[in-house]
Amino acid sequence: MRVAGAQIENVVGDLDGNAERILDAMRWAEDEGADVVVFPELALTGYPLADLVLREDFVQHALDVLEELGRESMHTAAVVCTIDRVPPRRSWDTRDRSLAIGAAVLCGGQVRGVYHKMLLPNYEIFEEARNFAPGDRPDALWRIGETVAGISICEDMWSGDGPPEAQAAAGAQILLVPNASPFHQEKPAGRLALASQVAKRNGTPVVYVNCVGGQDELVFDGGSLVVDADGELVYRAAQFEAERFCVEVQASPPRRCSGHLTTVHTRPAPTRPPLPVRALALQGSEDYQVWQALVLGTHDFARKNGRDSAVLGLSGGIDAAVTAAVAADALGPGRVLGLALPGPHSPEADSHDAQLLAAALGIRFECVPIADITARIEEGLAGLLDPPVPLEANAALEARTRAAMLWAVSDQGGYLPLATGNKTELSVGSAAVHGDMAGAFAPLKDCPKTLLYRLARLRNNREPAIPQRILDRTPTAHAEEDGGGLPSYEALDPIVERYLEKGEAYEELVEAGFDPELVRFGLQTVDDAEFERRQTPPGVRITSRAFGQDLRMPITNAWRPYRAATAAQAEGGIAGGTLREG
Amino acid sequence: MRVAGAQIENVVGDLDGNAERILDAMRWAEDEGADVVVFPELALTGYPLADLVLREDFVQHALDVLEELGRESMHTAAVVCTIDRVPPRRSWDTRDRSLAIGAAVLCGGQVRGVYHKMLLPNYEIFEEARNFAPGDRPDALWRIGETVAGISICEDMWSGDGPPEAQAAAGAQILLVPNASPFHQEKPAGRLALASQVAKRNGTPVVYVNCVGGQDELVFDGGSLVVDADGELVYRAAQFEAERFCVEVQASPPRRCSGHLTTVHTRPAPTRPPLPVRALALQGSEDYQVWQALVLGTHDFARKNGRDSAVLGLSGGIDAAVTAAVAADALGPGRVLGLALPGPHSPEADSHDAQLLAAALGIRFECVPIADITARIEEGLAGLLDPPVPLEANAALEARTRAAMLWAVSDQGGYLPLATGNKTELSVGSAAVHGDMAGAFAPLKDCPKTLLYRLARLRNNREPAIPQRILDRTPTAHAEEDGGGLPSYEALDPIVERYLEKGEAYEELVEAGFDPELVRFGLQTVDDAEFERRQTPPGVRITSRAFGQDLRMPITNAWRPYRAATAAQAEGGIAGGTLREG
Repeated sequence: MRVAGAQIENVVGDLDGNAERILDAMRWAEDEGADVVVFPELALTGYPLADLVLREDFVQHALDVLEELGRESMHTAAVVCTIDRVPPRRSWDTRDRSLAIGAAVLCGGQVRGVYHKMLLPNYEIFEEARNFAPGDRPDALWRIGETVAGISICEDMWSGDGPPEAQAAAGAQILLVPNASPFHQEKPAGRLALASQVAKRNGTPVVYVNCVGGQDELVFDGGSLVVDADGELVYRAAQFEAERFCVEVQASPPRRCSGHLTTVHTRPAPTRPPLPVRALALQGSEDYQVWQALVLGTHDFARKNGRDSAVLGLSGGIDAAVTAAVAADALGPGRVLGLALPGPHSPEADSHDAQLLAAALGIRFECVPIADITARIEEGLAGLLDPPVPLEANAALEARTRAAMLWAVSDQGGYLPLATGNKTELSVGSAAVHGDMAGAFAPLKDCPKTLLYRLARLRNNREPAIPQRILDRTPTAHAEEDGGGLPSYEALDPIVERYLEKGEAYEELVEAGFDPELVRFGLQTVDDAEFERRQTPPGVRITSRAFGQDLRMPITNAWRPYRAATAAQAEGGIAGGTLREG
Repeated sequence: MRVAGAQIENVVGDLDGNAERILDAMRWAEDEGADVVVFPELALTGYPLADLVLREDFVQHALDVLEELGRESMHTAAVVCTIDRVPPRRSWDTRDRSLAIGAAVLCGGQVRGVYHKMLLPNYEIFEEARNFAPGDRPDALWRIGETVAGISICEDMWSGDGPPEAQAAAGAQILLVPNASPFHQEKPAGRLALASQVAKRNGTPVVYVNCVGGQDELVFDGGSLVVDADGELVYRAAQFEAERFCVEVQASPPRRCSGHLTTVHTRPAPTRPPLPVRALALQGSEDYQVWQALVLGTHDFARKNGRDSAVLGLSGGIDAAVTAAVAADALGPGRVLGLALPGPHSPEADSHDAQLLAAALGIRFECVPIADITARIEEGLAGLLDPPVPLEANAALEARTRAAMLWAVSDQGGYLPLATGNKTELSVGSAAVHGDMAGAFAPLKDCPKTLLYRLARLRNNREPAIPQRILDRTPTAHAEEDGGGLPSYEALDPIVERYLEKGEAYEELVEAGFDPELVRFGLQTVDDAEFERRQTPPGVRITSRAFGQDLRMPITNAWRPYRAATAAQAEGGIAGGTLREG
């Protein structure tokens, strides 16, 4: 069977543009003599749609556009995923849902039928049980030429006893699987292992087609796969870019067919020259994949939202340096403005490092000292508080003043304002609300501090850009509230990571050998900072535990067992919660 | 049957505090001679828990505390809702879930059994299908004294053919229904209608117990209900405050029992004097309920997060006036600081009105002009942009400068910083990101502009506080980007409301008689402002379409049919999205 895959760009809501991209690939597949061309999950509408599917005009236009695509279809069967209306269905609650995620099969001028996704992921970043009804025909089969194919959509494939198993048992000789699978660090390796298992378990080849592109927090990284019935890799598409491929796949021998079979077409395979064997795309290192995700996510957020340039504050620190490099790679250095806004407590050397960085990256650099501005604000507020508290050096005020200036430059110049904060800062609440994390997009939001040093070195290997002095400086969290003495990120990072990613408790961490006081501090700062995290801009998700999407904690939350576990006094509140505004 | 209801406070995560409140009510019910006492949904853990249930130490502690409560239980059966471990179960996706929402029945020193919620709401603000498994025994019955009771939890009651129906058919003579039902404007009336229907359909009395209190965006308003088998109201508890009640309920005659029956106790009803008939709580007007929700939501967010005072900017407008009055009612006027921060374009009269307002409310007032501060910022940035764009009067810069100052006062003085923006502003994006909507909590976030005038008059009826001049002033959105000429809120409000709440499309709105250009403007501003809305603080939900919780749109979203529908030019971006930073 000659199978084409169209790893196209994911553009949410762009029904007409997506239809054009799909039609173009359908025509290309026709020219390639493919029996079938497979598109990613929700290729026509984009993914994820959130509550856009509640808009009736959107749903209707999507259905209309699918009909048009059906009319344009020729000999090559096209598996085009989109939303579909289904009879109202109640499942886990008392609401009827009447939309499904569908894979329409187009051929010979019409829509031959639609498979409806059975398994609707509703965990981590997924919330498909919110608006969609599950399908009710797991054993749907499709005769395409001389082969009987099964179609499963994304989550359908992950169960071990789901639609692929039902379809193979009912007679499928090949499994076609549209996906919208977002990147995180462990994802690409996991996909191949999974596709391989599914193929071996069912004795069928698997054609796994993913989409590409940034959508708010998510980056879809492509990397589509074809494995044979033994689970061996036949083809792998590039990551982080659109690609079309066409390969010969050896379908399994015909089986007794007991499923619900729709005939798409029954043309015998034409005599045609075999396709040349194509090289498998190489996958870069895990850190390099992260870099590509950051660049593509930033590029697509800017571009899809009407911005082609960015502005960011250059502090002379590692966060700003890596953000600047990502922005330069995403938009081109000529479209990035780095703004140093030194305050009363910024060492001269920092602005100098920032200037060196800008020169090495080739981005524009400007410097506006803000000491007199914050001094005016402090003057204005002095004596206002009763009892009067002298406004001392106030890092948060400085950060917020900088943010107001960055927004002003963005407003006037049409730049996308980038926040430079990282995940560790966001975890322990050392970024001021509307200060260090202010911006329309935060590329490093899901990157722990320790990863940033690896990314900086990786970027420097290509061309030296981030000055050595920035890499050598020891990072410290803001310390103003805690009278100095804040622990280092190196000490905090493993505690925070185990608490957040593995859900380890105070007792477990202490048993694992961490200092009890440090554990208490780490856990408390993480919990107290939830309210800050809610007000941060979107950023690129690179882990399976990104704040906001993957992990949603109550802001008002009295669960603070580590307080009872130590002599530390509860800081206030009837139930122990405390807002920190670091 | 003598039935007690404990409409207790909802405190998320406060396992020990909640257990104390529950135990106290159990002892009270014992003294009242009640056969059973019913607590709200997740009374022991608080609701909603979001991903707090992924914390293993939390789950284990909740189970331990339930066992302790079981040991303390005496003759009165107690229906205590909490989370419970269940055998791993797959339902709508490929993840096993091994936690359920349960109603444990405690009596005579032990936990007699647990009912598991069957229907898990996963729409609007609810996301119970994320972490919980559904129960598998809808016909569970509980013998309490001489009566067979059914227990259903919240959503279970809303289906028409769910657990209450199964239980009544299997022999239940009374239905006990723990709830965590958050307030919105239409909710209280809807609850009585529903409970009444369920009672009539099943021929059984219904005891509906809700919790009370603010939890981030949600306010649980109590208003617990008892209806008899004819659907007539027997008792209604107060709204917006904790309450205990004990009433005699006429259970339905015994039925043939075919369900899964657990015997809680079989004591014959003791001889006891009948309870005095208690008056039904009155419900205030819909607007008065909204006012109570705003006050309770603000009070609880502050108090449960360790703050007992608030600061807000007083502009002299209606938003700030209503926010100040809510804060004064929530925390006491002596604990509210109103800060006028007049900029170059603030009329003198505005600060004067703000001062009058503060005096009438009895809150503290301070005034710090900021014209010289924003002038310094503009000077610093002038000439930085290439080509140089003179920084003109910049309302957004002023708003962000004010926000930085409010945060500074909050940081130094321990105030909760309140944002004053309203829902209409948030809809059309006329509030600057990190400017007008800056704060830790935004009481009016879900209140349309037109509602604010009604609320102000309602508050003035109690005691004149909001100056007439503030009520008389015509509100206008910021106009700087659009060269003046922004339409009035009165013209925009109905378009925005129909677009958001009813999902009406451009064509429908134009057919309904609205000006096409105004519709295009309204729809575009709503869609473009999604990215601003993501960075706003939580606020009190008073409608069934609150931003963020109830309606989650993609930020990057190319669906802009109204652009094609008019001659208006797309403003940029490959797919037509545009960030507005008004």
